[in-house]
Amino acid sequence: MKSTYRERLPDFPESMTVSTLHSDVKRNEKVTADEDRRTRGLRALSEITGDSGAGVVASLRDIAPDLADWIIDFSYGDVMARPGLDRRSRELATIAALTALGNAQPQLKVHIAGALRVGCKPQEIVEVILQMAVFAGFPAAINALNVAREVLDQ
Amino acid sequence: MKSTYRERLPDFPESMTVSTLHSDVKRNEKVTADEDRRTRGLRALSEITGDSGAGVVASLRDIAPDLADWIIDFSYGDVMARPGLDRRSRELATIAALTALGNAQPQLKVHIAGALRVGCKPQEIVEVILQMAVFAGFPAAINALNVAREVLDQ
Amino acid sequence: MKSTYRERLPDFPESMTVSTLHSDVKRNEKVTADEDRRTRGLRALSEITGDSGAGVVASLRDIAPDLADWIIDFSYGDVMARPGLDRRSRELATIAALTALGNAQPQLKVHIAGALRVGCKPQEIVEVILQMAVFAGFPAAINALNVAREVLDQ
Amino acid sequence: MKSTYRERLPDFPESMTVSTLHSDVKRNEKVTADEDRRTRGLRALSEITGDSGAGVVASLRDIAPDLADWIIDFSYGDVMARPGLDRRSRELATIAALTALGNAQPQLKVHIAGALRVGCKPQEIVEVILQMAVFAGFPAAINALNVAREVLDQ
Amino acid sequence: MKSTYRERLPDFPESMTVSTLHSDVKRNEKVTADEDRRTRGLRALSEITGDSGAGVVASLRDIAPDLADWIIDFSYGDVMARPGLDRRSRELATIAALTALGNAQPQLKVHIAGALRVGCKPQEIVEVILQMAVFAGFPAAINALNVAREVLDQ
Amino acid sequence: MKSTYRERLPDFPESMTVSTLHSDVKRNEKVTADEDRRTRGLRALSEITGDSGAGVVASLRDIAPDLADWIIDFSYGDVMARPGLDRRSRELATIAALTALGNAQPQLKVHIAGALRVGCKPQEIVEVILQMAVFAGFPAAINALNVAREVLDQ
Repeated sequence: MKSTYRERLPDFPESMTVSTLHSDVKRNEKVTADEDRRTRGLRALSEITGDSGAGVVASLRDIAPDLADWIIDFSYGDVMARPGLDRRSRELATIAALTALGNAQPQLKVHIAGALRVGCKPQEIVEVILQMAVFAGFPAAINALNVAREVLDQ
Repeated sequence: MKSTYRERLPDFPESMTVSTLHSDVKRNEKVTADEDRRTRGLRALSEITGDSGAGVVASLRDIAPDLADWIIDFSYGDVMARPGLDRRSRELATIAALTALGNAQPQLKVHIAGALRVGCKPQEIVEVILQMAVFAGFPAAINALNVAREVLDQ
Repeated sequence: MKSTYRERLPDFPESMTVSTLHSDVKRNEKVTADEDRRTRGLRALSEITGDSGAGVVASLRDIAPDLADWIIDFSYGDVMARPGLDRRSRELATIAALTALGNAQPQLKVHIAGALRVGCKPQEIVEVILQMAVFAGFPAAINALNVAREVLDQ
Repeated sequence: MKSTYRERLPDFPESMTVSTLHSDVKRNEKVTADEDRRTRGLRALSEITGDSGAGVVASLRDIAPDLADWIIDFSYGDVMARPGLDRRSRELATIAALTALGNAQPQLKVHIAGALRVGCKPQEIVEVILQMAVFAGFPAAINALNVAREVLDQ
Repeated sequence: MKSTYRERLPDFPESMTVSTLHSDVKRNEKVTADEDRRTRGLRALSEITGDSGAGVVASLRDIAPDLADWIIDFSYGDVMARPGLDRRSRELATIAALTALGNAQPQLKVHIAGALRVGCKPQEIVEVILQMAVFAGFPAAINALNVAREVLDQ
Repeated sequence: MKSTYRERLPDFPESMTVSTLHSDVKRNEKVTADEDRRTRGLRALSEITGDSGAGVVASLRDIAPDLADWIIDFSYGDVMARPGLDRRSRELATIAALTALGNAQPQLKVHIAGALRVGCKPQEIVEVILQMAVFAGFPAAINALNVAREVLDQ
């Protein structure tokens, strides 16, 4: 890995090599036990999705309790709670991706509400969806705006 | 449209109704003539993509000159140049969407470089791609990281 | 670009080069001002989609008036109104693409009606959807036929 | 084609070459006439989908009778009835693919019921959908589980 | 099925009902035996794809001879050879769908060449790809044009 | 949740309710600490992917060490190592999904090799890809077979 790359990634320890695969590497967000992931996950889930995320998790406990756990521990505890990217960017990025995919409208709705909750302005949400007209086509953008309207109208 | 919605969208004029479809409504970013779109588009194309966007545009002039124009005038002039969302968020959102789609790696490469150009940190780019492991799966994230490495290694 | 290519594209001016990017090139469908795009777009929107396209545009004016403008000016004014491909082919191509994508059923419905409006026979619409069983799979074709039935039954 | 490949594909006749394209090659599942495909297809359709597949086929006879025939003769007669892969694997694979695609929920529902019918345990169906969280993302898995719940609750 | 629907589908026999599922219904393109499908399929494969389709079929005979048969008998014999939609429309529709999907560039290349072979003008092929910028986004259109250039430059 | 559902899911404890979210529920595959997930994940990664999975993980340690960890701990430790579905079914399901998605060929290659490693016959792998011609279209199946040939030819 070239030096210029490391210069631009100051938060990657110089000592990071493949041989550290099994050792106890101290890096950002090192999870040492389940309850840390669980605590962090529940907090991020609540801060981002309010009650809706907890509702999704609860609704899964009948059919797939382990997926419910993974949402909390992995999706939110390991990923969404990470400090390397601010919450507003995370939610706008999620809205962009789900708009482009076009087949995850329930999750899109959750994250449009999540974007508002973490401080995005309604206009910023609309802007990122509009931008998807360029990258994923007009149908994707129109259908996502119809989901956004449901949230923004509340 | 409920009043709470308008309260949260202060930049929508109260006078915006369907009947204003044909009238000369003065709103943000009103385009009055081609050369404004062209000027704004060329500037945004350069500021975001450096020379690579111009390269894509130039390469299309043999087979589809009008698409080359649309990229400049519409994609960048009408959409990417809009002030309602900051450039860094726009590029991270684009990276997220293209990562999720998984079938637009040339464009993903352009916009990873674009994200760096508009001020995103390499780690922020990596973070948004990692986040797509949750929303679009691990293959999407892994394949996008391989594109990112090409850019970050330069 | 080889000469055989130009021979097959008689409508590409011999003088088309990259250096003409900023000059006033007179080619097909050159847009000189907004109202030409707007006029052409509104006419194409009406001729192809009847009232439904205008309905979609109107419904977007509350949340994203600029997207409403782009549909008229860009999607229909710059693209759908172009003379290089007949209207029937345009609508059948749109039906094929939306059937394959499988996540844009509202737009598919609009364009199935549009295909009828521009002169396609119902059987031709059914044929293009059937063909998508080969290229996108049977679920895509079945789901699109269910949309087609709604339109054809009216 | 290397010999090691043929060693692992004992059911490919050594005499299989391109020149046999038009000759009367006797290989597994050689269809000699329509009614064999039809008979095999109807039986597989019933064994796998119970009445729901026949319902889909019947519902298509008004708008696309030939697609109805293709489902029976090709999808089930030529493909699903093949002996080279057991029925349980076929249904679990279909569930995985439709979960990943995320835009074919009616068919996903049919094949979740189909998986139960051919002997898969409910937990196996849930497991394959959970696994798609890794390969296609959490939204795909969550949305598929909501379809599964409809079937498993009956 | 309402009468207005039947009025617009004159080629659907009045006597078409579900109970005709097993009987010997004489309708368009009734296939009575394998060699008819095979003959029709080989002819359509050749007329549309020239040698490239035969090349694809031949290349599959080592690993999946039955898929090779299905391409000839089903994809071309049952579907592409049907008279209800002209060949030019079929090829333009295929190009549109494969452009939108963005993950089938080898097949897109075959069908761009196919479109030329059945009489489409190069400009018509470019137009349908351009149109996909509206329905599937600019990346899809740009990437498809790069495939088209390979074919048109020959 | 109806009683018939519980009857078919004998491995769901009767006591599973939402209120058990934070308690220490003892259910299948309860992970109590990181090193259990790590150990299980490394073993499953090796048993399924041989060295290729470790190679992917190692290649990610420069740019995204945490994703490398998540592949081992979550994808393989939490998901692929689960006992509720046999390894052969897991690999065939993965091949089906990646074939249908059509944009993850590197991962498809890994899992075709993985399917062989866990005991699938080459013909079973070919069969599941063939089946995707029905559910995702012929291009998806053809392109996946070309990946399979690379693996099966070794």
